Amino acid sequence: MKQRKIVIVGGVAGGATAAARLRRLDEHAEIIMFERGEHISYANCGLPYYIGGVIPKRQSLLVQTVQGMSKRFRLDIRTEQEVTAIDRERHIVSVRNGKTGELYEESYDTLILSPGAKPIVPPIEGLNEAKQMFTLRSIPDTDRIKRHVDETSPQRAVIVGGGFIGLEMADNLAHRGIAVTVVEMADQVMAPLDPEMAAIVHHHLQEKGIELILGDGVSAFQDEGRSIVLSSGRVLPTDMTILSIGVRPENELARSAGLALGERGGILVDEYLRTEDPDIWAIGDAIEVKDYIHGTPAMVPLAWPANRQGRLVADNIYGKGQPYRGTLGTAVAKVFDLTVAVTGSNAKTLQKLGVPYESVHIHPASHAGYYPGGSPISLKLIFHPETGAIYGVQGVGKQGVDKRIDVVATAIKGNLTVHDLPDLELAYAPPYSSAKDPVNMLGYVASHVVDGEVKVVHYDQIDRMVREGACLIDVRESAERDAGYIEGSIHIPLGDLRSRLDELPRDRPIVVSCQVGLRGYLATRILDQHGFDSMNLSGGYKTYAAYYGSRNPATACAK
Amino acid sequence: MKQRKIVIVGGVAGGATAAARLRRLDEHAEIIMFERGEHISYANCGLPYYIGGVIPKRQSLLVQTVQGMSKRFRLDIRTEQEVTAIDRERHIVSVRNGKTGELYEESYDTLILSPGAKPIVPPIEGLNEAKQMFTLRSIPDTDRIKRHVDETSPQRAVIVGGGFIGLEMADNLAHRGIAVTVVEMADQVMAPLDPEMAAIVHHHLQEKGIELILGDGVSAFQDEGRSIVLSSGRVLPTDMTILSIGVRPENELARSAGLALGERGGILVDEYLRTEDPDIWAIGDAIEVKDYIHGTPAMVPLAWPANRQGRLVADNIYGKGQPYRGTLGTAVAKVFDLTVAVTGSNAKTLQKLGVPYESVHIHPASHAGYYPGGSPISLKLIFHPETGAIYGVQGVGKQGVDKRIDVVATAIKGNLTVHDLPDLELAYAPPYSSAKDPVNMLGYVASHVVDGEVKVVHYDQIDRMVREGACLIDVRESAERDAGYIEGSIHIPLGDLRSRLDELPRDRPIVVSCQVGLRGYLATRILDQHGFDSMNLSGGYKTYAAYYGSRNPATACAK
Repeated sequence: MKQRKIVIVGGVAGGATAAARLRRLDEHAEIIMFERGEHISYANCGLPYYIGGVIPKRQSLLVQTVQGMSKRFRLDIRTEQEVTAIDRERHIVSVRNGKTGELYEESYDTLILSPGAKPIVPPIEGLNEAKQMFTLRSIPDTDRIKRHVDETSPQRAVIVGGGFIGLEMADNLAHRGIAVTVVEMADQVMAPLDPEMAAIVHHHLQEKGIELILGDGVSAFQDEGRSIVLSSGRVLPTDMTILSIGVRPENELARSAGLALGERGGILVDEYLRTEDPDIWAIGDAIEVKDYIHGTPAMVPLAWPANRQGRLVADNIYGKGQPYRGTLGTAVAKVFDLTVAVTGSNAKTLQKLGVPYESVHIHPASHAGYYPGGSPISLKLIFHPETGAIYGVQGVGKQGVDKRIDVVATAIKGNLTVHDLPDLELAYAPPYSSAKDPVNMLGYVASHVVDGEVKVVHYDQIDRMVREGACLIDVRESAERDAGYIEGSIHIPLGDLRSRLDELPRDRPIVVSCQVGLRGYLATRILDQHGFDSMNLSGGYKTYAAYYGSRNPATACAK
Repeated sequence: MKQRKIVIVGGVAGGATAAARLRRLDEHAEIIMFERGEHISYANCGLPYYIGGVIPKRQSLLVQTVQGMSKRFRLDIRTEQEVTAIDRERHIVSVRNGKTGELYEESYDTLILSPGAKPIVPPIEGLNEAKQMFTLRSIPDTDRIKRHVDETSPQRAVIVGGGFIGLEMADNLAHRGIAVTVVEMADQVMAPLDPEMAAIVHHHLQEKGIELILGDGVSAFQDEGRSIVLSSGRVLPTDMTILSIGVRPENELARSAGLALGERGGILVDEYLRTEDPDIWAIGDAIEVKDYIHGTPAMVPLAWPANRQGRLVADNIYGKGQPYRGTLGTAVAKVFDLTVAVTGSNAKTLQKLGVPYESVHIHPASHAGYYPGGSPISLKLIFHPETGAIYGVQGVGKQGVDKRIDVVATAIKGNLTVHDLPDLELAYAPPYSSAKDPVNMLGYVASHVVDGEVKVVHYDQIDRMVREGACLIDVRESAERDAGYIEGSIHIPLGDLRSRLDELPRDRPIVVSCQVGLRGYLATRILDQHGFDSMNLSGGYKTYAAYYGSRNPATACAK
């Protein structure tokens, strides 16, 4: 049998995974992996932590060396060599050797494109003259930033973009003693979160001394980048700036070879990761994928999909017919003391898609309240209002958040609905969880909504409902109410509710609020069975106050 | 409509949950909850930690007070009142008021039995005369043990039984500065683990200064319990003894009422938790359940099933027809610095049932190796050798164990197979996981076995295989081998394997061992494609050495 010659463009996450898998499948193939940069398979997700000093050794970032990987998998790895063109008809790529300037050609039987993505750098006035201006994607980027911090001891840093990398950098630069300002054009950080969940992150960033400027963008750099002029007119002096407003696919090679691209520039592939050219496959941040739940086109530049696709593309090249089933978008980040994690769709996306949904919010303890060291987790579960199909979950808290998101991500892949979540038999001992795990609780609360056992209203609906005549009651204890409440609410502690029913109107809806939503639910059960039309504020005052603070007086309710 | 009168026997986990749910479903029912003891709904799983001082306040153990719960759910809660008999025909229970000695009757429309389980105390010579002898189940048990420790400052404690509670007590008594000996009749602690996984726990206990006596039992107590004579003849002096050899269902009430019991004494119920008497239901530790995977009868005295059943029994009494689908047996315990967790069936159980299975072992890092603070997790996945259906998983490690067990427990409930585990899109950032999560890795490794891509052998098969002529090679680096190896293995580092193939026999199977199983797999891929008949030692030297230490010389192999 003729030995197959496989050429891989890009040697970081997907490319390196594909190369290793290809060798395991075919000991005899010729496998050449080109990498434009100096390093292969480095710890992309670890870069901010090396800058912050959390990862002390640069060496730790280099997961695989060229020498080690070449030997173990018998690969021909060529770093600092850039594939500049594909001649699809002749099955040849053009290569520029960055070390020597030499240009040469290499033939292939099968070509895998894994070129990744690059930071978006928008055309901003003064950008070209700006110094101490960085993006973070590669080891050299990291070296530049770290050298700047080490050598110039900046006092102030501005991070443009409040996404995952932006906030990880905020965390790490603050860890280095730098005063950090985050500028974000949207009115929230971390786009995968819905606004009321992002609000929890906003408070935490501010507690940690990060200046957060939302709803504003950069309009110009002045004084060689030492001043940043915002769209609002505000001017920020800075000793360093990180641009982290997103990435876009490295698609020039595919484009110039005439391969089809999606609307947002991702290389188009079929479910087996093959482009329209049967001998060219593509993976990783450069491709357009399908959203796992909706099947809509998506660009998800994350490590898990890249690694998974690297494995599958190798299997599929060898005829194993393993489809890539789409990307859920599971993601997690540490933001100072918080863990922020998501999977699936958020409400914003579902609104855009016009998909009907309902959601619930809970704030359970990470583990049994009587065992020391626990802390609350805020969770939001989103689901189909009638079938209970799970669309997504968002979590913010100090501990145990990643676990709950992973469990729900697994439930989604198992086609479980909200009705199945209470039935998940999760591991309980006091240091780890409660006899009803937070995921069980999400399932119970969401099932009640789907089954019509309780009606919920959301933090952003209260105002309107009260204006339209609903009566708002607060069933918490006095001590809780003293720490803050929704203005205009009537105070009737849950324990007194049965004896004070005659204070409530029977001709108007009653909205119940408590601290986290549990007592509100209990109250609606009492009210509904006594003939009232009641509904519960999802997530209670805690979700409401996270978003609004104390600036949302609702009008009073009287019988 | 006539108001329904529901009587609940037992007010701890299942009973209290049922009562609260019943009230939410029916604001008008009369609900009486009898509890023989003084406390309801206390933190059973927290008791060892209060004795250890980890939970400082006794108050923390009392999750619900009689007063608070009565008021919130409008319940008639009667503590220190024991239901002593059921007259099924007349629908009446007999009650003894423990405070007054009064005997009285109470009628019911619907009766829920949630009496729990009690510690097994076998008839041992000298037991009745023994002092400073304890079992741990209730708050008064806890008070007795804590008082003994506080007041007599025992130097030495013996724990009889190495199950979850026994080891939690070992941890907590050691935390109080007491020298602890654990005596276990089996040759391993923690029966839900298979022996090679329990071996990791044994090493850890010994590192922590616990004396572990396996394969030995108590034959007599002497000197009022100050000496324990073991079956081996060994005599242990002790200042306190905890009997934690298991529990048995509190079934006397059901038995005397003529309700059917299972072989091991559990009250028999249908899938809706109803006994053979249509007006009597039963839940919690006292009932026999079905094993979720095999459908076989099981007794699983854990908090999650009791809580779940408490909810479901209330729903079913109100006609909601919610089946209890059986118990997986998900469990977790903290044992000093280790987390030990399981779900589903272990190999020992499958052998007894005669169910064919295969298993794989891995030892991945809890999170990305380049991010500080991670530690290895040992995981064992058990599955059907052809379909890849998941039977169970076991995990031991310092961090992130509970998360991985929960994810697999969810996968089982979603009917996912080992082929689906690589496709779980789990949350990755360096502080939390790796781009391939340990659960993904389990899936890859198990899929390779099911798909015939690699053959595995297990730690306990090596000796026999080498005796029967297999050639054993060790593909680790010299530095690793210097720290211990399987005697008789030939040393060929993976990187040299391709160039040293001619040293290996082609007429005998080749068993490859490495440190954790990964390089061994890579080696088998090379060997098989070069025409050898190779197989990989599952879990590598790490699993082998955990079980055997260095006492298993295998004979040398020569071509």
